[in-house]
Amino acid sequence: MKQQLLNDYNTSLSHSGINGERLASRLDELSAIGSTEDGGSFRLAFSPEEKQAKDLAASWMEEAGMIVRRDGAGNVIGRLEGSTLPGRRVMSGSHLDSVPHGGHFDGPLGVLAAIEVAQAWKDNGEQPPLTFEAVVFSDEEGARFQSGLSGSLAMTGEINLEEKAGLNDESGRSYEEVLSDQGLDLDSVRRAEEDFSDVEAFLEVHIEQGKRLEKAGLSTGVVEGIAGPAWLKVTFTGRAGHAGNTPMDDREDALIAASRFVTEVEKIPAAISRTAVATVGKMHVKPNGVNVIPGEVTLTVDIRDIDQKARDEVIRRTKAMAQYIADDRGVATSTETMMSTPPQPVPEELLALGAEAVEKTLGTKPYILPSGAGHDAMIIGRKAPFAMLFTKSRDGVSHHPAEWSSLSDCVETIHVLKVLTEAVMTQAQTKNQGGNIS
Amino acid sequence: MKQQLLNDYNTSLSHSGINGERLASRLDELSAIGSTEDGGSFRLAFSPEEKQAKDLAASWMEEAGMIVRRDGAGNVIGRLEGSTLPGRRVMSGSHLDSVPHGGHFDGPLGVLAAIEVAQAWKDNGEQPPLTFEAVVFSDEEGARFQSGLSGSLAMTGEINLEEKAGLNDESGRSYEEVLSDQGLDLDSVRRAEEDFSDVEAFLEVHIEQGKRLEKAGLSTGVVEGIAGPAWLKVTFTGRAGHAGNTPMDDREDALIAASRFVTEVEKIPAAISRTAVATVGKMHVKPNGVNVIPGEVTLTVDIRDIDQKARDEVIRRTKAMAQYIADDRGVATSTETMMSTPPQPVPEELLALGAEAVEKTLGTKPYILPSGAGHDAMIIGRKAPFAMLFTKSRDGVSHHPAEWSSLSDCVETIHVLKVLTEAVMTQAQTKNQGGNIS
Repeated sequence: MKQQLLNDYNTSLSHSGINGERLASRLDELSAIGSTEDGGSFRLAFSPEEKQAKDLAASWMEEAGMIVRRDGAGNVIGRLEGSTLPGRRVMSGSHLDSVPHGGHFDGPLGVLAAIEVAQAWKDNGEQPPLTFEAVVFSDEEGARFQSGLSGSLAMTGEINLEEKAGLNDESGRSYEEVLSDQGLDLDSVRRAEEDFSDVEAFLEVHIEQGKRLEKAGLSTGVVEGIAGPAWLKVTFTGRAGHAGNTPMDDREDALIAASRFVTEVEKIPAAISRTAVATVGKMHVKPNGVNVIPGEVTLTVDIRDIDQKARDEVIRRTKAMAQYIADDRGVATSTETMMSTPPQPVPEELLALGAEAVEKTLGTKPYILPSGAGHDAMIIGRKAPFAMLFTKSRDGVSHHPAEWSSLSDCVETIHVLKVLTEAVMTQAQTKNQGGNIS
Repeated sequence: MKQQLLNDYNTSLSHSGINGERLASRLDELSAIGSTEDGGSFRLAFSPEEKQAKDLAASWMEEAGMIVRRDGAGNVIGRLEGSTLPGRRVMSGSHLDSVPHGGHFDGPLGVLAAIEVAQAWKDNGEQPPLTFEAVVFSDEEGARFQSGLSGSLAMTGEINLEEKAGLNDESGRSYEEVLSDQGLDLDSVRRAEEDFSDVEAFLEVHIEQGKRLEKAGLSTGVVEGIAGPAWLKVTFTGRAGHAGNTPMDDREDALIAASRFVTEVEKIPAAISRTAVATVGKMHVKPNGVNVIPGEVTLTVDIRDIDQKARDEVIRRTKAMAQYIADDRGVATSTETMMSTPPQPVPEELLALGAEAVEKTLGTKPYILPSGAGHDAMIIGRKAPFAMLFTKSRDGVSHHPAEWSSLSDCVETIHVLKVLTEAVMTQAQTKNQGGNIS
């Protein structure tokens, strides 16, 4: 992998203490942990592989002059003391666990980006004015218990331990058992809760997992918000019947109602918001016989937007559309909310700083885009200001061995992260001085 | 069941030798064979239950003065010699096997109707001018090998024994093994082929399995043709993607294409024929994840009409619609014909005789309707003129313990069958005399 990364690397990007060759080596070393035959990686949460990757990251944190601590949820935090405002901190990081047959960038890039910024300062003989923390969050993907983000949720004190305690992984082992493999327990997870009042910002670098930046021909995008998904389950109930003996005008076909719904749902987001999306991903037809008119169809709608009001309007119209179509077709319908996570918009001030950092660093017009997927930054963003930078993702592929971002693009994003981190710190100092004066 | 049948029976319908009370007793006796806990019956093809029911029917044939023979496919035929044209015959019958948890009328009514006509003649001291045969066909439903009508197919010599020989039932037993339970084998099935050149008509009474007669408030309908089903398998292939990170305008959603197709398929039959129907009964979505844009959808279309040209036009337009929508949505599509049975229209002369028989017997305007389901008459109809009479079916329910036709309705249909049989015979005599004179 290292050679592949270096093949098309623009070496002039290695400057200001940020080193593309080092990043390539580290991405390569991490990719080897839990490597799968298809060229991907699999580092399940709380597995020996995730642990080994975390230990390696911890060693790099120390190399960058950071003091490493591990909290009760297995999160690894490297700390670099600030020179002028050590009581205020900027955090940055991501995760090292993966989905089965995952790729090498989703998670690792964000962790290595944070460490690279610290290493750059060290290599330049600089000390940041505020305290800087690089973080590896545990169990972001949720592949083990179908319920992720548990490291960041533990840190913000929002983890639902009662729920987690009831979960088993595929091999039948409980959340508590797999925690104990790492010397952790439910109590230690509870104690991982931190006070975020001293956090100036949490900054996360991540691959885009979409094709917007690729289409725009840009290495780096500035995230305007993380879309909170809401999942609806919609059921249409008609009347099953013989496909041969029931005239077309005497049917209560649940699938025709459901199908009209699917074609209408597609049109709803654009009418409400530029960033909203709605997807019917799952559908089950009953009785699902070639010669039987469908009596019942159950489907799911995944609705997301970075703006809660807009997202909730999409939900409202989607539910109303189901009822309208059911009434029109003479079938029954019911809607159930399976899950709803609030969207997390990036605070305006940090969004502006991110845009400025792109312009200053890369000389290109900042590209602002939503994140459709959830990230640890979405969780931390509930407790502290946050921002996210996306790196261009080839073909938009993620959660797959083919996941790829070029080394040059990764390094460009890390330059932006460094400039953004410094800008946040500078602004904090200015605010602090202002505070002292008033 | 007998008491329930007699409760609302109009006893004045027992006349001309047709006896509703006898019919109720016989329906009741048959229903007890293979009776299920939910009030239904289960007489699997080539099971001891089907055999027991056939033996009982054979005893009633003998009671009606018929000579009973069993052919190599297990079909039971009762023969009543004709007085003036014994070399020409009219056949009538149906089947006694059922689906699992089946009802008590689908099949038995047609068998008992034929026997009742013979018994009526005997009770009236009459002998029909032509030979009359009552038939019990084996294995009509196909519940054992998912491939039915094998008794009538054997009789017409159209059974595909190579295909049958490869089939196993749910318990893993082959077609040949279950035949041997009945003292039959593949060779005997082959020898069941009959010459139909002496058959004046095959007449089958069956419950409607639909709600047309119920809506029209009529006991008996005259079938204008049996719709041959064609089954298409249509696949739409788009591109799977993340439901959060893929903008609405950058998707190749296979389910939206499939859904538009479903809503359009519904509109095709009415544009082509009064009797055509098209049904999307089965649908599978891949990968079928809540947060994944569907990459592939496979669905089936069941298309039927009693007119082959019209049916084939529905098929053509359905395929064209799939291609049109796929092109319009930027996804791929493919269509495969899983099965296609030719429709069997009732010959005009027999349809007219059936309509006259209804008018003469019941005094009501004849109600002409298509049969959407296949029947033994569809198979025999390829070799000999045929007609079918339908009896009103409560709520259109069939293949279910709740299947029900009132005794009065059944008896009315049997009166029509008797009148129709006699009319066919009279016409045959006239033709024959005409032939002699010319």
